[in-house]
Amino acid sequence: MPVKIDLALVHYPVVNKNGETIGSAVTNLDLHDIARAAKTYGVDTFYIVTPYEDQQILFKEILDHWLVGEGSTYNSIRGEALSLVRICSDLDELYRLVTKKWGERPKVLVTCAKCREDTNPYRKVREKVLAGESHLILFGTAWGLAPEVMAAADCSLPPIKGMTGYNHLSVRSAAAIVMDRLLGVGKD
Amino acid sequence: MPVKIDLALVHYPVVNKNGETIGSAVTNLDLHDIARAAKTYGVDTFYIVTPYEDQQILFKEILDHWLVGEGSTYNSIRGEALSLVRICSDLDELYRLVTKKWGERPKVLVTCAKCREDTNPYRKVREKVLAGESHLILFGTAWGLAPEVMAAADCSLPPIKGMTGYNHLSVRSAAAIVMDRLLGVGKD
Repeated sequence: MPVKIDLALVHYPVVNKNGETIGSAVTNLDLHDIARAAKTYGVDTFYIVTPYEDQQILFKEILDHWLVGEGSTYNSIRGEALSLVRICSDLDELYRLVTKKWGERPKVLVTCAKCREDTNPYRKVREKVLAGESHLILFGTAWGLAPEVMAAADCSLPPIKGMTGYNHLSVRSAAAIVMDRLLGVGKD
Repeated sequence: MPVKIDLALVHYPVVNKNGETIGSAVTNLDLHDIARAAKTYGVDTFYIVTPYEDQQILFKEILDHWLVGEGSTYNSIRGEALSLVRICSDLDELYRLVTKKWGERPKVLVTCAKCREDTNPYRKVREKVLAGESHLILFGTAWGLAPEVMAAADCSLPPIKGMTGYNHLSVRSAAAIVMDRLLGVGKD
């Protein structure tokens, strides 16, 4: 049964390494890697959020290459993954789109470097996803989502940790691991 | 306690989409993403295997930028991850290096799209790693490791799957997920 789970990669508002709110630019491999993982794990839609028109055009050009251009004949498997991608201008538009799609506002999740009071273990969120509840997971580019976006999320997922104190994964790696923890099969 | 686990990203011999053996080129984000995940999960060394001298020079230039050049002052955290990287020319050299380091030849693992007879569940390999046994995990660039490399591995890990039939992750995503399955903390 398809699950009601969406991902969004947010390019504004995010923070830079000094904690200042910025808008970030297209990273081609974010699009490819996260779309391929989303397709593998059965995510419904992978939303790209950016208010910048030139960046939206660039994303569309990349998508067109793989969906209808030369890339589609070179490697049609890539197009299958990239067909999950939708571009939207801001978080308000994103929330409108997913609410309309599912007929309800989905739970909005973020991953947090430190556990918040409303942190839910992966196991619990997985159960809710498998029970048919709709969820939207936000990932931030640059140095992460702006504080007001984090604060407005419904709940957070536990930080991704290994056995070290180092915790600086790329957003591509973090998204892949979160999908595996929530939707992976045969993980043990 | 540090674990005796190493990763290697193999650029030769790998296969292209027609199954022909080729050598692949540097992808800058392979280096960054896998090094960052390796540092997060406590991997000892991240080996880059390529026989091509121009590619080795390119890798060294990227590493120098982040370890001693401008990148090291811009973002020293990145250098911490990239300090795990070692470049070697071929699999023979890789096996010599890791055997010398651990005083024994580690178990060589690969991930397989289909389960082989010698496939071990992640749980079992994790137990062995935590018990102090040395392991080396090989990842292939391009369309994956050449058949003779796969065949010579000691055992394989189960394929990475979601709830769909699609199974085309980037090597960056696959490596991150394998590390999380073997070495992740708080995954549930």
